[in-house]
Amino acid sequence: MEIAIPLHEDFTALDAVGPNEMLGRIPGNTVRWLAHEPGPVRSDSAGLQIVADAAFEDVPHPDIVLVPGGTGTHRFLDDDRILAWLREAHEHSTWTTSVCTGSLLLAAAGILDGVDATTHWTRTEKLERLGARYVKERVVHRGKIVTGAGVSAGIDMALTLAALIHGDDVAKTLQLASEYDPQPPFDAGTPDKAPQHVVDFLRDRALAVSP
Amino acid sequence: MEIAIPLHEDFTALDAVGPNEMLGRIPGNTVRWLAHEPGPVRSDSAGLQIVADAAFEDVPHPDIVLVPGGTGTHRFLDDDRILAWLREAHEHSTWTTSVCTGSLLLAAAGILDGVDATTHWTRTEKLERLGARYVKERVVHRGKIVTGAGVSAGIDMALTLAALIHGDDVAKTLQLASEYDPQPPFDAGTPDKAPQHVVDFLRDRALAVSP
Repeated sequence: MEIAIPLHEDFTALDAVGPNEMLGRIPGNTVRWLAHEPGPVRSDSAGLQIVADAAFEDVPHPDIVLVPGGTGTHRFLDDDRILAWLREAHEHSTWTTSVCTGSLLLAAAGILDGVDATTHWTRTEKLERLGARYVKERVVHRGKIVTGAGVSAGIDMALTLAALIHGDDVAKTLQLASEYDPQPPFDAGTPDKAPQHVVDFLRDRALAVSP
Repeated sequence: MEIAIPLHEDFTALDAVGPNEMLGRIPGNTVRWLAHEPGPVRSDSAGLQIVADAAFEDVPHPDIVLVPGGTGTHRFLDDDRILAWLREAHEHSTWTTSVCTGSLLLAAAGILDGVDATTHWTRTEKLERLGARYVKERVVHRGKIVTGAGVSAGIDMALTLAALIHGDDVAKTLQLASEYDPQPPFDAGTPDKAPQHVVDFLRDRALAVSP
């Protein structure tokens, strides 16, 4: 299957690289990294750049659309080229997926109107304002649309998708190959679990960037 | 702190991008992506390229050395430039770290002689043949050396390191920002937990690449 990952300036690299590590390793799958123009695209983290191998319009009908988010995503919610590409790609796709605030782009393109979806925990109201119905789950699967929560949830989303497409054994093979037996040293991965001052700090900072 | 990530052809992108997502977001930290030459470096997955911003020797004394592995790592275990850079960098570093088979490079450079360390589960004997003492843990911390197991373990390694350097609150902030509340759809992330035919398939394939 052909997987297309549309990048924009200040995307979050792990949103894209987590799922790529899973889906991109399945024999027969190819991954196309797209952007406004081919060439390096700056992520939102510490100078990391990933190379886009083509422009959006060069890959109009991928089998799987996989949209990462990022701290720069809010600047592209009215980007005509991205939104037009998403609408066209979604119309023909087998699967349309997102990680983190990538779902805001899907919603801005009208793809999530009235559809259950998830996003980064700081952006749930924004997702609803754009027409989707926020569901508080790490991975939300409705029809051919699969959305993942913030950043690291892309790995769980991709394993879920791999199982849907290729069966449980393939997903387990990807999980073992990447030794995905998570053991975070703390249990602070959701606002329900993290200390309140940590939650407040991040929510205030997120709202300062884009209310 | 200055963090240096040395890349080689066919590195595993998630080995590097997972920890970068954590450590690179701490205010005041800078991440340098290094390679034999500046420019795009091909990862071992599906055409993903990350841009190196400098050559190894341009950043001789980073505070943190973070070495990713990959399916191409075995071809660089006698690479004079990488090994010389690792020895020099480790001599001056505050922390020397690796993810997955990145520890094989540290061992090949003589940095892990008699030192407890971990690596990808298919490469434990190779690590020992290179002089380290394999420890079956996801993150192994000995003195200033912190090694992580395969691929996704880099995220746990980086959170452990963030807590050691900056305290628990910073690590929890990084965990919540990346919504790292893992919920893999299966429990197959280690050879003890995965189905035996999945374990055998991956071990045979790994040994075919590099015994």
